[in-house]
Amino acid sequence: MAPRVLICGDIVWAHEEVKQLFDGIAEVIRMDSTTRTDFMAGLKTSGKYAGIVGIYRHNTSADHIGIFDREIIKALAPNVKWIAHNGAGYDQIDVQECKANGIFVSNTPGAVDEATATTALYLLISTLRQFSFGERSLRSNTWKSPIDPGCTHDLSARTLGILGLGGIGLHLANLAHAFPMRVIYHSRSRNHNAPEWCQYYAKMEDMLKESDVLSVHVPLRKDTESLVGEKEIRAMKKGSIIVNTARGKVIDEDAMIRALADGHLSSVGLDVYPDEPNVNSRLLEFPQLALLPHMGTENQDSQKKMEIRALTNLRNFLTKGKGDDLISEMR
Amino acid sequence: MAPRVLICGDIVWAHEEVKQLFDGIAEVIRMDSTTRTDFMAGLKTSGKYAGIVGIYRHNTSADHIGIFDREIIKALAPNVKWIAHNGAGYDQIDVQECKANGIFVSNTPGAVDEATATTALYLLISTLRQFSFGERSLRSNTWKSPIDPGCTHDLSARTLGILGLGGIGLHLANLAHAFPMRVIYHSRSRNHNAPEWCQYYAKMEDMLKESDVLSVHVPLRKDTESLVGEKEIRAMKKGSIIVNTARGKVIDEDAMIRALADGHLSSVGLDVYPDEPNVNSRLLEFPQLALLPHMGTENQDSQKKMEIRALTNLRNFLTKGKGDDLISEMR
Repeated sequence: MAPRVLICGDIVWAHEEVKQLFDGIAEVIRMDSTTRTDFMAGLKTSGKYAGIVGIYRHNTSADHIGIFDREIIKALAPNVKWIAHNGAGYDQIDVQECKANGIFVSNTPGAVDEATATTALYLLISTLRQFSFGERSLRSNTWKSPIDPGCTHDLSARTLGILGLGGIGLHLANLAHAFPMRVIYHSRSRNHNAPEWCQYYAKMEDMLKESDVLSVHVPLRKDTESLVGEKEIRAMKKGSIIVNTARGKVIDEDAMIRALADGHLSSVGLDVYPDEPNVNSRLLEFPQLALLPHMGTENQDSQKKMEIRALTNLRNFLTKGKGDDLISEMR
Repeated sequence: MAPRVLICGDIVWAHEEVKQLFDGIAEVIRMDSTTRTDFMAGLKTSGKYAGIVGIYRHNTSADHIGIFDREIIKALAPNVKWIAHNGAGYDQIDVQECKANGIFVSNTPGAVDEATATTALYLLISTLRQFSFGERSLRSNTWKSPIDPGCTHDLSARTLGILGLGGIGLHLANLAHAFPMRVIYHSRSRNHNAPEWCQYYAKMEDMLKESDVLSVHVPLRKDTESLVGEKEIRAMKKGSIIVNTARGKVIDEDAMIRALADGHLSSVGLDVYPDEPNVNSRLLEFPQLALLPHMGTENQDSQKKMEIRALTNLRNFLTKGKGDDLISEMR
């Protein structure tokens, strides 16, 4: 029996095109389970997914079978050797369990840099200029609603602090520099690709004190959960803004809402939330916020780039024994 | 009697600060008329505005006394010699009538470049990525609404055509180049400050054929009214986008709405409308549009920059006999 690869979740490429890509290498089958029970049954020796050695995974698969937690990973082992995740963030995969069971995990860095950095810039402009509020005002047939002019600013008059200067953060730094904003950053370590105008702060708190706008670009891991909490938010200046296009749980949402309520934060721009697709209803009470429904990487150009990258990683694993873009925990 | 200057419309600077700026040069008085009749009466020899030689003007004055049309200009002559308009666009002033009556008019170029270009970039991102629609979907408690993925794009995959490469257009070109977008432009003549990557098209139609997004940056004059009409819109590719932060009347609104209705244009992002503050209700029927209530220069940093520039022009006229930023028709 030829090895089989499983397409698990959304894909824009036509099935025939994917089959072509794996022609002579593996049989391509599509995950069609609508429940976890059905999925788990399919993985058994005589099940519909028997013989799969690699998986292309999109987060939309979680809508049907849930995230790739310990139970699923254990059921994938020992046959499955590679999970090619389509996306930058892979917090829906139990990476430690994968390691324990000899399953490699790749993601699609780079492919999402522009799309996500563009989303962050959009939220940054919107919150600094109160554009989201303005659009809602116009569409409710009131033309302009009075806005406190003290809250609106040119970007060039502000300092942007970037938390996590990977590919996305670096792309955002370059976009913001065009205005030019002053751009500073904090990462676990200095990024040697950072341009000289982008100053490194070894201590997060030192960067926060200087920032008018904080943009979050760290992945969600145990050590980054609530990384931006009460203390960090209060270290920022009064009237500051936070933009988050990474993962909702990186910020302590309760602390953020308290700071919005007492005016310490003037606004926030969010694309991600701790419990998606649920949005804390208290956020909707602040008219000045810009709130997107996790669209950071959503556009056809980036989706194609990401899919090609994920599928290529899976293909290279089958033909060369190893794919690229292995996640950092496995390098 | 010392010469007097009249503050006509919104100003952020405190009255005491403005008085200080003109200390020993002119008496500063504030226009407090709520009707045109009261304003015209005030200009008479014994009226409350008698003796004014210069005017600081903001478009908000039109809410009370109407635009500076022939009637007002004739009443200002022969005493008033300088109108220091706060703003880039001065289409609310009858320039030919000013010329005929020996009144100089200055505007505030440069000061608005960043704020307006940022607004255009925001509308460009929003329309290419369907973010306005996404925000409304989230706030109506539906999380995401399905979006045709064929309509959403990375900026780097698109060509931006800039109509009018003055200070604002050039600033936008630089912001878009950071992604990088391909940027091309058409102006009445080549801008010698244009970077080499920004290609000039002597014929507007040639530029339109190449553009995925058109951004309009020409002032409203008789020869620019409906400059973007049926023919020009149809010269663009199917699925194109138009962004307008200049003046509503530069685009033939009916032709634009027809092109939206039949899908020739996939979206438009507008900050300006032909009959502000009225917005054509047909525009509101398209959920994918990004519609701002003329906020292009609205933020405290730009407002201050513009006021300082307008007040300085007025002051220099009084002390040196001539201010800067004379409008092009008077140079």
